[in-house]
Amino acid sequence: MARWNWGRVSVLPFTILVHLVGILCVALVLVWMIHFRGGLAWSTSNQILIFNIHPVLMIVCFIFLSSEAIVHFKSAPGSKFYKKTIHSALNAIALTGAIVGVAAVFKFHKELGIANLYSLHAWLGMLTIILFGLQWMSGFLVFLFPRGAKKTRGRVLPWHVFVGLLVYIAAISSAESGIVELVALLQGRNAMGKFSPEARLANCLGLSLLLLGALVVLSSVLSSPSPATKPEDAIAIPSP
Amino acid sequence: MARWNWGRVSVLPFTILVHLVGILCVALVLVWMIHFRGGLAWSTSNQILIFNIHPVLMIVCFIFLSSEAIVHFKSAPGSKFYKKTIHSALNAIALTGAIVGVAAVFKFHKELGIANLYSLHAWLGMLTIILFGLQWMSGFLVFLFPRGAKKTRGRVLPWHVFVGLLVYIAAISSAESGIVELVALLQGRNAMGKFSPEARLANCLGLSLLLLGALVVLSSVLSSPSPATKPEDAIAIPSP
Ligand code: HEM
Ligand code: HEM
Repeated sequence: MARWNWGRVSVLPFTILVHLVGILCVALVLVWMIHFRGGLAWSTSNQILIFNIHPVLMIVCFIFLSSEAIVHFKSAPGSKFYKKTIHSALNAIALTGAIVGVAAVFKFHKELGIANLYSLHAWLGMLTIILFGLQWMSGFLVFLFPRGAKKTRGRVLPWHVFVGLLVYIAAISSAESGIVELVALLQGRNAMGKFSPEARLANCLGLSLLLLGALVVLSSVLSSPSPATKPEDAIAIPSP
Repeated sequence: MARWNWGRVSVLPFTILVHLVGILCVALVLVWMIHFRGGLAWSTSNQILIFNIHPVLMIVCFIFLSSEAIVHFKSAPGSKFYKKTIHSALNAIALTGAIVGVAAVFKFHKELGIANLYSLHAWLGMLTIILFGLQWMSGFLVFLFPRGAKKTRGRVLPWHVFVGLLVYIAAISSAESGIVELVALLQGRNAMGKFSPEARLANCLGLSLLLLGALVVLSSVLSSPSPATKPEDAIAIPSP
């Protein structure tokens, strides 16, 4: 994103933190679903295990990989083309994981005769995935193949970054609302204590996701170590 | 925020939409709490009415007024000092409303003997309010009174804008998670149908809040009609 004049704060410590906090989120959701919720399965007579695939894929694939996609583009070495390819590929895997993750809930609902897409979490989630898909598609067409003219790419870039960050924030928000919904549903039928270790773990996952989101957005607006900045791209902030 | 080179998109239509969508959110939460949930009261033997004050104040004061504070600073006429004063005052009222709104839940919990601060929504909400308070305080000290040197203000401004937007996004996220939690708790004890008009209204409120958040962030990064941009504040975005 923009090389803001942040008084020379380096982006590298932030990208390292992104990896660590991302791994923490992955570990927390795995412990939650495998240790506390009984594990994962796609074909089973215990349908809860099908549902459990949903949070795992949404966090391990969708959130973790799209976070890595954003900061990889920012901090890793390599040619611009190479970076763009990795960025695009990571986001494609993240999106595929998200679609399979939602399919798991549909399968769970179908086998138990529960309706689909009634909750705000479901609406926010679907909207996020659709926007993510459109953003991926437009980025691919403009920056990779068939690729627009240099001038077009320059015009589209700030929008790509800006809309990309908004969609990323929507993904974090969707995940938070999923955690809140699952915990409230379980607590509503007394299947989880208010101050139980499991509830604490879910809350810690929620806070870790928030931290991850803030770190990713922050690394995106901090200057990267690569040199190229061009005067014609200069923008100005108002004096205070 | 930054005068991005967005190809001359004007901010004014966005600020008008912010007012309209903000009013829509206010209307939806009032209809929800007054028509569907029985109304509002501070002293009553029907404690649900005390809780109902919480969503109303969080949206009418906290979200609506802080949205207005951000775009007012961006789009309204008047001297810089006048704008800063209104921006600061609106945010102060928003924060006060938020504190009273949380006090309503504490009162509700106390009268019914329910524990406080167990849910992820509560944790996210408290964190948001604390960050909002710190952000307000630091902005007041640096930009209004006692007010830092011009150079300090220039250095702090991008951080103030950036952290301010992050805290604003956290507020929208907290409100979304509050809606999800309330609906899941009510549906968990079969007090609200999955596809009932009330559930639809809650989902529409959630989507309207998301739209409001996107519009506010968008107006903040679009150029405002005021002229002053200074070369020494220039920053650059990388070429794509
Ligand atoms: C960005 C991440 C996420 C997205 C985009 C997302 C998306 C969705 C969608 C579209 C549905 C509706 C499926 C249907 O109605 O058939 C859904 C359902 C659900 N999700 Fe998520 N989700 C995400 C993360 C999570 C997480 C992290 C959790 C919990 C820890 C979670 C818990 C739930 C629950 C409880 C349901 C409802 C299942 C039911 O009604 O029985 N989600 N999600
Ligand atoms: C930015 C907006 C919001 C913030 C900062 C916020 C903050 C909080 C906090 C700190 C608590 C915990 C109070 C306690 O444990 O004693 C709480 C509880 C709660 N809030 Fe919010 N809230 C917001 C918006 C909403 C909205 C819009 C709704 C619903 C439409 C909502 C529904 C709830 C519910 C259901 C509880 C739990 C009450 C209970 O446990 O019985 N909140 N909120």
